[in-house]
Formats: sequence, C-alpha cells, structure tokens
Amino acid sequence: MAESSPLYSELLERLKRAQLLESISSVMGWDEQVNLPPGGAPLRAAQCALLADLHHAVAADARTGELLAELEKPGAAATPGEAARLVIRWARRDHDRATKLPAEFVREKAEQGSRGYHAWTQAREKSDFASFAPVLEKNIGLARREAAYLGFEYNPYDCLIDQFDPGMTAAATERLFSELKTGLVPLVRAITAAAARAPVVVLRGFPVERQREFLREVTERIGFDYRHGRIDVSVHPFCSGSGEDIRMTTRFDADNPLDSLFSAIHETGHGLYEQGLPAEHHHTALGQAAGMGTHESQSRLWENQVARGRGFWRFFEPRFRELFPEQLRDVPTEELYRAVNEVAPTLIRTQADEVTYNLHIILRFELEKKLFSGALAVRDLPAAWNAASEELLGLRPACDREGVLQDVHWSGGMFGYFPSYCIGNMLAAQLWYRALELRPGLEEDFARGDFSWLLAWLRENVHAQGKRFDVLGLARHVTGEELSPRFLLRHLAERYGTLYGV
Amino acid sequence: MAESSPLYSELLERLKRAQLLESISSVMGWDEQVNLPPGGAPLRAAQCALLADLHHAVAADARTGELLAELEKPGAAATPGEAARLVIRWARRDHDRATKLPAEFVREKAEQGSRGYHAWTQAREKSDFASFAPVLEKNIGLARREAAYLGFEYNPYDCLIDQFDPGMTAAATERLFSELKTGLVPLVRAITAAAARAPVVVLRGFPVERQREFLREVTERIGFDYRHGRIDVSVHPFCSGSGEDIRMTTRFDADNPLDSLFSAIHETGHGLYEQGLPAEHHHTALGQAAGMGTHESQSRLWENQVARGRGFWRFFEPRFRELFPEQLRDVPTEELYRAVNEVAPTLIRTQADEVTYNLHIILRFELEKKLFSGALAVRDLPAAWNAASEELLGLRPACDREGVLQDVHWSGGMFGYFPSYCIGNMLAAQLWYRALELRPGLEEDFARGDFSWLLAWLRENVHAQGKRFDVLGLARHVTGEELSPRFLLRHLAERYGTLYGV
Repeated sequence: MAESSPLYSELLERLKRAQLLESISSVMGWDEQVNLPPGGAPLRAAQCALLADLHHAVAADARTGELLAELEKPGAAATPGEAARLVIRWARRDHDRATKLPAEFVREKAEQGSRGYHAWTQAREKSDFASFAPVLEKNIGLARREAAYLGFEYNPYDCLIDQFDPGMTAAATERLFSELKTGLVPLVRAITAAAARAPVVVLRGFPVERQREFLREVTERIGFDYRHGRIDVSVHPFCSGSGEDIRMTTRFDADNPLDSLFSAIHETGHGLYEQGLPAEHHHTALGQAAGMGTHESQSRLWENQVARGRGFWRFFEPRFRELFPEQLRDVPTEELYRAVNEVAPTLIRTQADEVTYNLHIILRFELEKKLFSGALAVRDLPAAWNAASEELLGLRPACDREGVLQDVHWSGGMFGYFPSYCIGNMLAAQLWYRALELRPGLEEDFARGDFSWLLAWLRENVHAQGKRFDVLGLARHVTGEELSPRFLLRHLAERYGTLYGV
Repeated sequence: MAESSPLYSELLERLKRAQLLESISSVMGWDEQVNLPPGGAPLRAAQCALLADLHHAVAADARTGELLAELEKPGAAATPGEAARLVIRWARRDHDRATKLPAEFVREKAEQGSRGYHAWTQAREKSDFASFAPVLEKNIGLARREAAYLGFEYNPYDCLIDQFDPGMTAAATERLFSELKTGLVPLVRAITAAAARAPVVVLRGFPVERQREFLREVTERIGFDYRHGRIDVSVHPFCSGSGEDIRMTTRFDADNPLDSLFSAIHETGHGLYEQGLPAEHHHTALGQAAGMGTHESQSRLWENQVARGRGFWRFFEPRFRELFPEQLRDVPTEELYRAVNEVAPTLIRTQADEVTYNLHIILRFELEKKLFSGALAVRDLPAAWNAASEELLGLRPACDREGVLQDVHWSGGMFGYFPSYCIGNMLAAQLWYRALELRPGLEEDFARGDFSWLLAWLRENVHAQGKRFDVLGLARHVTGEELSPRFLLRHLAERYGTLYGV
C-alpha cells in the first residue's frame, strides 16, 4: 500500500510543510484585517510576499515532482488505495500549477495584491474610479498571464473560476445562472412589491456588549467549537484559519443588530465546515475544503435556511428579548421575524437580503466574463456596472463607491471568485431539501435548540469528504440530483410566499 | 565602496529575508499569547518550529558564507565603510552561529520550547515541580549542547548570556552584581524597615475601560507612535514586533491600577527603543537592538526614573483624578506618590518594586550559574531557590508556584536572560544621571507634559546606534564612564531617602 511507502511518507511531509506555510499566511492575513496598525502595512505586504514565495518554492520543488512521478507509475510496487490516489491527484494538480508559475510572477502578484488593496481603500473612500483603473488593468493583466501560464481550453476566465471552485467552468456557471435569473427576476419583483407594502420595523440602540453575548451563545449552540476558534471584529466579516484555529470576524452596529448576528452566523457556517474537515488530514486533499462554492453552501445554509427560519427563532427569540427587553418591547414576534427576512433591493452586495443577493452575483459574473473576453474595457466598466445595476436591481449607483468600487475582491486580483457565492446559495438550498426529506422534523429540532442532527449530517456528508467531490459531484453524491437553481427558487418562493402571500 | 557593490547588495537581500522571517515569527508569537484558542497550541508549535527551521536555513546558507568571505577579504576591490563593516561583522556572527547549529538541533529546540511552555503552565498551576523537573533537565541539556556547538572559552553560561547580551560574560556580570549586592542589601533593609512603618494606601475599584484610556494617553504623550503599534492584553505583559509594527501588552486589574499602568509604561520603553531604530536598516545591525540589557535600560528608564518621579505625576495626577474622582477622593497627593513608589519585598519577581527587583535577579543569576557549572542539580533546585529567597528577600515560598516555578523563561529554554533585567536597571540609572547633567530641568519638562527632550536624546544616543555598541560600550559612549551599579544605588538612595528619610 502506498499509504505506508517511504515515498508516500516523504510526499506527505512536503504537503505538511506547504500547508503549515498556508496556515501561517492565514494568521498573518487575519491579523492584517483585525489588528494591523496603519503604518505596518508595507512590512505586512513584504511578509506576505515572502510567505507566498516560500509556499511556491515548496510546492514547485523538483523533488515533489519526482515523488509524484514514482507514485503515479502504474506498475509501481505500491498500489495506492482510494484515499492515497486522491491525495496524489491533488498534490499533482498543486505541483503542476506551481511549476507553471514562475517564482518572479508569484512574487509580483503577491506584492501587487497588497498594493492593490491599499489603492482600492483610498479610491473607494474618495469614490474615485479613475485612480483605481490602472490598478485594475494591472490586476487583469496578471490574471490573464496566470491563466496563460496555467493553460486553458476555451477561456481564461474558466481557469480563474477553477482556482476557487475546481471543476466549475464559465459555461457551466452560465447555464446555472441563466436558469436562476429566469426564475429569480419575476420572483424578486413580486416579493419586493409585496414587501414594500409592509414596511419593516427598525431595530435601534442595541448595546454592542449584549450583541456580542447573544451571538456567542447562538454560534456556540449551533456547534462552533471555541476551543479551536474565536470571533473578532473587522470592517468586512470573514473566516480564515484552519480547523484547529479558526478565526472568524463580524462587525457591530448598535442600530443594526441583525447585521452583526447574521454575519457571525454566516462565518460560523464556514467555521463549522473547517472544523469538520478531518484534522489528521489537513495537509492533504482528504482534509481540505472542496472549493469555495461548497464553502459558501455551508455558510449560507446556516445563515439563511436555518437562522432565518421559524424554528431557530422559536428557540432564540426569548433569549433575544431577555437581553434587549427595552429595544424589543414594541416589536411583536411576527414583526421581528419579518425584520429577519426583510427583502429590499440595495446597491451594496454585502447589505443584500437572501433573495436579491443572487442578482448582485449575476451582475458581477457577467461583467467579469466580458472583462476577460475583451468585450468590456476597464474604462467602460463603471458605466456597464451602473447599467447592469439598473437592469437587475432597479437601482442606479449615485457614485462609484456605491457601484463598481464597493467590493474588495478585484483589488487583490481575485477574479472568478464571485460566482461561488451564488453556487453556494444553490447548493445550500439543495442540501436543505435533502436534509428535510431525511428528517422532516428539522424545524422542530431547532425550536428545541437542537442543531445536532443537521450538523452531524453535514459533517458526515459534506465536511468529512474533504476534496473527494467537486461542487457538482457533491450535489450529486448527497442529493442524488445534479446541481440546480430550482431548489433555491423553491426555497425563496416558499419562504417569501408564506411571508408576503406572493 | 562595499555599500554599492553587487555582493554587498546580495548580502543585504539575504539579511532582509532573515529579518522578515523573524518579524513573522514575532507576530505569530504575539498572537499565541494574545489570541490563540487553547486547541490551537499544537498547530502553533508546528508553525513556529517551521519558521525557526526556515530562518536557520537562510542564516546558514552556504552562499551567505561565500558572500561574507568575499566581503571580508582585506584586498577586496570594495573597501567597506564603517557602517558596512558593522553590518558584515554581525552578519558573520549570525552566519557562524547558524552554521554551527545543526538544523535538526534547531528544530528540536523549537519544538521543545513549545512543549516546555505548556508543561510549565500545568506544573505551575498545580505547583508541581516534580512534573516540570524532567523538562528542565531536558532544556538545560539542550542549552549545554547549544553552548558546545557554538563554543565558549571558560563557561557554557557565558555563551548563553552572550546570546541575549552580546559582549557580556558571566564574570563581568558577577563583578557588577556583587558590587550591587553589597550596596543594595543594607539599603533594602533600611528602606523596607522605614516603608513598613508607613503603610501605603490601597487603590481599589478602578474600571478597566478608564484605566485603558489613561494609559493610552500616558503612553502616547511620552512618545509611543500608535500608527506603528498597538497595545493589547496578555497574562504576562511583553513587547514584540519590529519598529513598523510594535505589539505591546499589559494586563488589567480593577484593584491594582498601578500594575497595568507601569506594565504599559515599561513596555512602552521597549516600544520606543524599537520605534527609534532606523527603519531603513531593520534588516542589519545598523537598525537592530544592541541586546537585552540595553533594551531593558530603555523600559526601566521610562518606568522607574521617569514615571515614578515627581515631574511625571505633577503633570498626570490631575488627569488621573479626573478619570477616577471617586476612587481617589480620599487619597492625598503625597499618599498617591507613595503608592507609586511602594517598597515591599515580595516572593514574585513580576510584582516586585524597583528596589527589591534587583535581588530577584541576583537570586536567579546565582542559581543559573550553579546549574551550568554543575554545582547544583535540578532536583535540588527548589530547596536552593527557597534558601536564596530567604537570604536575599527575607521571604520563604510556601509552595513552588511562589518560588522556582514562577517564571516562564526556563520553560522555553531561556537561560542567561535574567541578568539583562538588572544590567538594564544599572544602565537606566547611569543614562538618567547623564541626561540630568545635560538638562538639569528634566523634571520640570515632565511637569509640563513635555517628554520630548529626553526621547530625542535617547533616540540619538541609544536608539539610532543600532548594534554599534554593546551594553558596556554604550555606557562608555553615552556617559563617558564604565557601566557601574553605583548610579542605580544613588538613584534608589536619593528617591527613597527623600521619601522615607533613610
């Protein structure tokens, strides 16, 4: 068995080193967003570039290539089992990617990522796209070069999507999004029209310390293990780290307690996935996340299907009222539930509700496609953004800060990432209906404060799988059906149909 | 000039890489003490061991040796200037040390350091020296091996001291400490007898948020640059990071506001030193701290000479009272000043006043010397500690937690570090009297809230020097005299003579 061969052990040692370097980068990245004093930015950029360089050197090392070539030989003394074959296949993919990218390019990209981020924060503050445009040009150029180094069949954009969601292509995404859009646009119109007739209560004056207490109780109850993680504050909530040490963030606003709560639950979904990956395999494909679409399915499922549902609030509402008696005195249960599920198109993606959120992603996907096909020039991007925003959301940004400058992703050279948010929403709904088939009483579990069945089911069927399945394969494996937007459309229609009678 | 030769530039690139790795280790170490969830400890140990390994590989790299050999050639085309000669000399020292230590040893020591720390926290909690003894044996064995690899003339302990304070030896420390002890023991006796007759007011019920506000104002006013640093909370206060991103910590206790304040000021002294090192030279000896004795002189000078003095309190007392009007209502100015300068022997070093603190260090120095000369076995250490404590401090620990298990240093294999605390106290007093000669009105500056002259003088004479002088050379350079305990004895006699009439 390859599992016990010296060559395989040597490969594992090398993978462990690569994963340790990634985990160090992850702590440094978390620290950059949570703690870094402003004057420390240039030093941090240099530190991160060095770590990227070291990681690349380990991944591209010739000895790793030799080991892989030996282990892949069909007539090799050791016949690898299924698990080892998976490990070797992913190690090959990572090694090939690393050897295709020159070290100089990796360094340039890491440094540009940091510079781009700071250029973006300044441009965004002044709502000044012109100052950001050269950075974006440069980032797109680097992404094109990266795709050229890595190679692609049809489209450089495929290659970028595949980085975040292995197995996905622009064409497959296109098909899913097109079907989703067809069903979603009329649904959004009906829901927002109905929602506009029923204004939602505004929640104000929720002391931050109590919000913190509540979200700690909630995230612990649904299963986050604080012996192996923590939650802090950052401008944009995120989750990083590895299963042994998960770093989540949220943000607090006394006049928007649901934002901090749902941000925290969303990140907890990511954290639960990471904590559920088999710890002894964190350095191989057996213990690593399948991709960002799958990752987002886990955050969305807990955030939307679970925590915006009736059962969850039957359990947590009393405690919420206990912590905020004054603030909630004049808010009846049904109004609170409507506030949790408020639907209203907004210009800003990160403030969007679970219905219109998907339109934000479709907008970005369509623009990214055009940027990489050459159909859209950077200088025309703001106008294209505004037109798409008007078409999809019915809202036109008054300035670029509310439009094309709102997201961090492109500043760091992350193209092809956005689709995974929406893929995640689809998979979340699809998993949810499968779970309900297996355990129709899930909402009653939640109403008793018991989230253990759902977590255990996800642990077994999603988390424990590591990279065994890509996002399409996982949908098939767990639900027996191809990934499809119809579950998401069904979920939205059912939830908001009941709520608003549409 | 070597400064512009390609070989010298290549050397500098290599030194930059080494320094970046150190700065990453520093952030990871800070994070370990400030943020790490308990379950993340094994991962963090592996991360730190990898970073130590990478650093060692860079420092020991054969190409660095070749570059140094070329640059050191007397007939080389490039004749290095004074600055480059210093850089090369220190790079040689670091390279030689690295090549003398096998990579396997570096890894073993890093891993043992982490294991030792966790064994110590458990042993300390249970006050169980027996469970810690094997760890200590192992650490001493590693330190002996390290000294043997590095080589030493008389005594392995010299080699350990020299790690933290280049240029110092056990014999030189011995001479200084012996003179200090002779003067100090009767002085402590007189002060503590007088102090015991004048009990000190107890400060209680100081809300932590206001303490935080006060110490932020104080540390900012004396010159700490928060654009390049921050202060957080940890069990043991410390300062780490590099000048662009300094991480200080303190701890808070509502019933001990002076502890958090003086811990913060102490760490600010370290932080000011790091922030004063020339930033463009952080990767070479021109921009790195001279050693731990010099480092401690900076923290002690701000903590003791400055912040326990009359001028400082003339300026800050009104604000302190403004923030804590209730708590200080019945505390007259003179009583507050006495509380700031309370002297009372204690079993615990970190709680000691500035007078008896030095006895704690002498105790540890004498025991470390015996442990490394072979005159004392680990199993006899608790008894030796208790006897020395009784002799020097007049107090006998009731359990090992209050005695031999109280300090973290030995758990991580840090032997030879303690002396630098006391060396720092001596140098601080010596620098202080020199500053007073140059500017007799320093206390009046402070009373106006103006700390700029002193900081500028330290910046120029101490901080900007980098590693140009070792601790003995620095004393000579700045004060024109050899390092001597008599300035510290004079400072203590003057301050406590006035306060208690001894």
